[in-house]
Amino acid sequence: MYFMATNIVFIFVCSVLVFFMTPGLSFFYGGMVPKKQVNNTLMSVFIMCSIPVLLWVICGYSLSFSGNNWNLIGDLHNFMLHNVKMGAVSALTDGKLNNVTFIIFQMMFAVITPALFVGAIVGRMDFKFLISFVVLWSIFVYYPMVHMVWGGGFLQGLGALDFAGGLVVHINAGVTALILAWFLGPRLVKQNASPANLSWVVLGTSMLWVGWYGFNAGSALRMNTIAMQAMLTTTVATATAMLVWIILDVFFKKNASLLGICSGAVCGLVAITPACGYVTITGSMVIGLVATLASYLFINKVKPIIKIDDTLDAFGCHGIAGIVGSILTGLFASKAVNPTISESGFFEGGSLHLLGIQLGATIFTVIFTVVIVSIVILGLKQIIRMRISKAEEKLRELM
Amino acid sequence: MYFMATNIVFIFVCSVLVFFMTPGLSFFYGGMVPKKQVNNTLMSVFIMCSIPVLLWVICGYSLSFSGNNWNLIGDLHNFMLHNVKMGAVSALTDGKLNNVTFIIFQMMFAVITPALFVGAIVGRMDFKFLISFVVLWSIFVYYPMVHMVWGGGFLQGLGALDFAGGLVVHINAGVTALILAWFLGPRLVKQNASPANLSWVVLGTSMLWVGWYGFNAGSALRMNTIAMQAMLTTTVATATAMLVWIILDVFFKKNASLLGICSGAVCGLVAITPACGYVTITGSMVIGLVATLASYLFINKVKPIIKIDDTLDAFGCHGIAGIVGSILTGLFASKAVNPTISESGFFEGGSLHLLGIQLGATIFTVIFTVVIVSIVILGLKQIIRMRISKAEEKLRELM
Amino acid sequence: MYFMATNIVFIFVCSVLVFFMTPGLSFFYGGMVPKKQVNNTLMSVFIMCSIPVLLWVICGYSLSFSGNNWNLIGDLHNFMLHNVKMGAVSALTDGKLNNVTFIIFQMMFAVITPALFVGAIVGRMDFKFLISFVVLWSIFVYYPMVHMVWGGGFLQGLGALDFAGGLVVHINAGVTALILAWFLGPRLVKQNASPANLSWVVLGTSMLWVGWYGFNAGSALRMNTIAMQAMLTTTVATATAMLVWIILDVFFKKNASLLGICSGAVCGLVAITPACGYVTITGSMVIGLVATLASYLFINKVKPIIKIDDTLDAFGCHGIAGIVGSILTGLFASKAVNPTISESGFFEGGSLHLLGIQLGATIFTVIFTVVIVSIVILGLKQIIRMRISKAEEKLRELM
Repeated sequence: MYFMATNIVFIFVCSVLVFFMTPGLSFFYGGMVPKKQVNNTLMSVFIMCSIPVLLWVICGYSLSFSGNNWNLIGDLHNFMLHNVKMGAVSALTDGKLNNVTFIIFQMMFAVITPALFVGAIVGRMDFKFLISFVVLWSIFVYYPMVHMVWGGGFLQGLGALDFAGGLVVHINAGVTALILAWFLGPRLVKQNASPANLSWVVLGTSMLWVGWYGFNAGSALRMNTIAMQAMLTTTVATATAMLVWIILDVFFKKNASLLGICSGAVCGLVAITPACGYVTITGSMVIGLVATLASYLFINKVKPIIKIDDTLDAFGCHGIAGIVGSILTGLFASKAVNPTISESGFFEGGSLHLLGIQLGATIFTVIFTVVIVSIVILGLKQIIRMRISKAEEKLRELM
Repeated sequence: MYFMATNIVFIFVCSVLVFFMTPGLSFFYGGMVPKKQVNNTLMSVFIMCSIPVLLWVICGYSLSFSGNNWNLIGDLHNFMLHNVKMGAVSALTDGKLNNVTFIIFQMMFAVITPALFVGAIVGRMDFKFLISFVVLWSIFVYYPMVHMVWGGGFLQGLGALDFAGGLVVHINAGVTALILAWFLGPRLVKQNASPANLSWVVLGTSMLWVGWYGFNAGSALRMNTIAMQAMLTTTVATATAMLVWIILDVFFKKNASLLGICSGAVCGLVAITPACGYVTITGSMVIGLVATLASYLFINKVKPIIKIDDTLDAFGCHGIAGIVGSILTGLFASKAVNPTISESGFFEGGSLHLLGIQLGATIFTVIFTVVIVSIVILGLKQIIRMRISKAEEKLRELM
Repeated sequence: MYFMATNIVFIFVCSVLVFFMTPGLSFFYGGMVPKKQVNNTLMSVFIMCSIPVLLWVICGYSLSFSGNNWNLIGDLHNFMLHNVKMGAVSALTDGKLNNVTFIIFQMMFAVITPALFVGAIVGRMDFKFLISFVVLWSIFVYYPMVHMVWGGGFLQGLGALDFAGGLVVHINAGVTALILAWFLGPRLVKQNASPANLSWVVLGTSMLWVGWYGFNAGSALRMNTIAMQAMLTTTVATATAMLVWIILDVFFKKNASLLGICSGAVCGLVAITPACGYVTITGSMVIGLVATLASYLFINKVKPIIKIDDTLDAFGCHGIAGIVGSILTGLFASKAVNPTISESGFFEGGSLHLLGIQLGATIFTVIFTVVIVSIVILGLKQIIRMRISKAEEKLRELM
C-alpha cells in the first residue's frame, strides 16, 4: 500500500508533465508558422485540452481498456467512468496503481496525440472539420490502437513492444498527418519565409522534452529501475539526435541552425519512445542516430519530390522517426535491461523473431491508420468543408 | 514515517507547481495589455514572489495557523517561524506532513493570491500603493481568511467546504479586485485594441493550468485517492469550461477565439477549486458549465453596465466563477467521493443544509472582503497616491 | 526499499526540474541581447542539452565519481557507463538512491553549468570554439571540481561545505566567464540599448527559479527535512535578494526595474545554493542581502572600471554571489539545522574554523579555475579562431 502511494505520486508527476506537452507543442508549431497564422495554430493545438478530455471520460477510457471485442476494441461498460472504482487497484497496471491514476495518465496521452497531426494542416483546414475529425479519429483510430497495443488487443498478444507509444502515438499520428495533408492539398502560397519566432520553437521544444520524461519514464507505470533507465535513454538518444542533425546541417547546408537542433531533439525523443524502457545506452545512441538520418533525409530529399504539403513535418518527424524507433526496438531490446520481455533483439543476443514482430506491428499500424483515416476523411467531407476558402487562406498567408 | 516521506515528495512537487502559477499569471495578464504596459504588468505580478514570501515567514504563517483569537485570526507565537520544529509532524495536516512542508505549501498560496487582483488595476495604479496595499491586505484580509477557513476559525467550525481555496483565494481576490478597480476609477483611454500578444496569454494559461494541479490535488495534503480525484475533476471541469466558452463565443460573436478558450479554461479552473475533492465527474462538468455561463454573461453583459473598469476581468473570472463554484459545492459535494465530509449536497442525496452553509460562507467572505478592503484603501490613500498622474498614464496607453 | 523508491521519485522530479533550467537560462540570456543575437544566444545555451549529456555518459560520470586519483579526479572504470549496475544501491548517496538515478541527477548539473558562462561571450565567440571549449572545460575543470567537492576528492576531505554547487557550479562557471570575456575582448559596438524582450527574461528567471528547487532541495539526495529546509531557505533568500535589488535600484537609479528584480532573484538563488541545506531562515535572509549588495556594486561600480566585457554578467552574478554565499556558509551553517555537518559556523555557535575552510576552498576554486581555463583557452586558440570576424560581428550588432 505504501509502495502504491509512491507509484501514484510518480504517475501524478508524469501526468502533469505529459499535460505540459500539449501547450508545448502549440508553441513548437506556433513559432514556425507565419505571423498571421500563429493564433490559429495555437488554438488548433490548445483545443485538444478540451474535447479529447471530455471524450476520454465519456467513452475513451472504456473503449480502450474495458472488455475486449475481437481483440480490436473495448466496450462501453465504463461509459462516463461508470462502474469504475476510482481508488481500487487497477489490474491493467499489474496492481501498481489505482484506477483513477491510470485513467488520468492515459487521458493525457489522448490529449497530446491528436495535437501532433495539427502540424500537417496549419493555415488551411476549416476549424469545424478539425474538431469533428478529432472526435471521429479518437473513436475509430486512437482508442482501437490503444486497445490493441496496451489494452489486451491482438498486437499486445503478438508480443509487440511499444514502451511509451511509438505505434499508438507517433506512427499513428504521423501517418494521420500525411493522409490529412494529402487530402487537404498544399498551401496556396508556399511560405519559404523564416518562421515567425524561433524563441517560441525553443520554448516548445523544451516543454516537449521536459514533458517527455513523464511520457517515457511514466510508461513504466511504477517507479523502478526501468523507469529511470527510460529517462536516461531518452536523454541520450535526444542528445545524439541533436548532434546528428547539426552535423547534417553543416554538411548539407554549411551551417548549424537553431531550428535544426530543435527538430533534431524532437526526432530523438520520438524515436526512443517505443524503445526507451528496453534498450542500453549504446542502443539509445544508435536509435537517435539512425532515426535522425532517416527523418533528415525524408524531410530534405524525399518530401520535395512527393509534393505532399506536410507543412511542419508532422509525418517527417513523428512518422519517420517513430517507424525507425519501432523497428529498431526489435534489434536493440535487451532482456538484461528489462527482464519482463520474453526475448531480446538481434543485436542483444536474441533471434530475428522480435524484429519480425516489430516490423509486422509497424506495417499493420501504418495500413490500419491509412485505411481508417481515409474513410473518416471521405465521409466527413460530405458533411463539412475540409478547407477554408481561398480568400480566407490568402488573408492568412500574407504577413 | 515512510508514508509521510511519500506525502512530502507529493507536496514538494505541488508547491513547485503552485509557485509556477505566479509567473504564469504574469504572462496571462502581460499578454493582454497594450505593449507599453507589458513590463509594468509583469513587474506588478512578479514582485509577489518577493514581498509576500518575506511577510509569510515573518508573521503570515503565525497569524494564519498559530493559536486562535476570536475564531478570526491566529497569534504571533511563530513570528519569524520561531518555535516551529521544522521536521516535526504537523497537527494541522492530521499528521500527514511535517511542519516545514506545510509552511512551504501554504506560502505559495500567499504568493499567488494577491497576484490575482493585479489584473484589475493594470496601467494606472502607483507601484508604491500596490506594494503597501499588498502588505496590509495580506495581514488584514488574507491571513484572517486562511485562519477562518483552514486554520481553525469560525467558517471551518461551521462546516464550510473549501477544498483548495474558493473562499480563501478566488472569491477573496476577485472581490478585492472589484473594490480596487472601483476606487481607482477607469483607465483614461479605454483600450479596445487587441491584446499585445496572445502567445503569452496561452503560455500563461498553460502555466496556470499545470500549476493548478499542484494547487487542487495538493490541497488533499497527502497522496490518496481524493487527491487524484481532484486532479481528474479539475481537468474535466476545465475542459468543459473551454468548450462552453467557445460555444458562447460562436453564439454571441460568430467566432471562436484564442482569448476565449484561455478565459474559459481559467474560469473552469477557478470554479472547480473549492469543489474538486468533493464532487463526481458529472458534478465537475456541471460546475464548469454553470460557472462559465455566469462569468461569460457577467463580463460581456453586466460589466459594460456597471462601469467598473476591472481591466482584465479579475473579478469577472475569479470572483464570479469562485462564487458559483463555492455555492455549487453545496449541491454537488458527495460523501461517496469524499467520506471525510459530514454531509452530501442536495443533488448527491443530502439535504439543503450544506447549500445553506456554502451560501452563508460565500456571502460572509464577500462582505468581509468588501469592508476590510475599503477601509484599507481609504486609510492608505491618505498616505500614498493611489493612481499615477494623467501624464504618466497617457504615456503608457499610447502604443 | 520502499523508502528508496520514494527518494527516487523525488530525485526524478528534481532531475526534470534541473533539466528545465537550461532552456530557462537560454531565455534569460536571449531576452537580454539585441534582436539579431537572440537565435545565436539561444543556440549557444541550448546546445548544452546535447554535447555535455553525451560526454557525461561517455566519461564524465566516471571521471567524477569512479575511483580517486591524487584526490583530484576519478578514473575511466565506468567509461560509457560500463560496469555500472543501474539498479544497484549507490554508495555515493549513503545508500539512498540507485546508481541510474544518481547518474541522471548529476548529468543535469553537467548540462547547466557550462551554459552559465555563455552569458559572458554572446555575440562574438566562434561557435566551433565554444563547442570545443565546453568539451575540454568539462574534462579538465568541471569533472575535477565535482570529484574534489562531491566525489571523494580533497576539498570534501577538508570538510568544505557546498550543499548544491557554489564551488562546483557557480564560482566555477562565473570565474570561467570572466576569463573567457577577458581573452575574448569586448564587443565592437557596446550596446546600451534596452534588452530585446524582457518578457523572455521573466520567463527565463521563472524557469530557473522553479528548476532551482530541484537543484537545491534535490542536493539532499533523499527526501528529508533538510531537503525541505533547503527549499524554504532558497525561497526566502531569493525573495530577500529581489527586494534588496529593487531598493538599490530606487536608491541609485530612482526607479525599480523589471530587469532588476530578475537579476536580484538570480543573485539570491546563486548565493543560497552552497548554504541552503545548512542555514536558518535568518541566515538565508542575510545571505540574500549581502550577496545582492556585492553583486549590485560589482556590476554597477566595479565592472565599468575593469573593462572586461562580461556581457550579461555571468561573473557579476554567478561568480560574485557564489563567492559570497560560499564564504557566508562558513558563518551561518548550523548543526541545529543540519546535524550531519561536523561544526557550526561562527554566528551559529561555532568557531572561525569553518569560515577558514570555506575561504580556503573558495580561493582554491578561483585559482584552479583561472589557471586551467587560461591554459585551455591558450591551447585551443592555436587551433580554432576564438572570435568571429569583425564583419560578421557588426552584422549581428546592428538591429
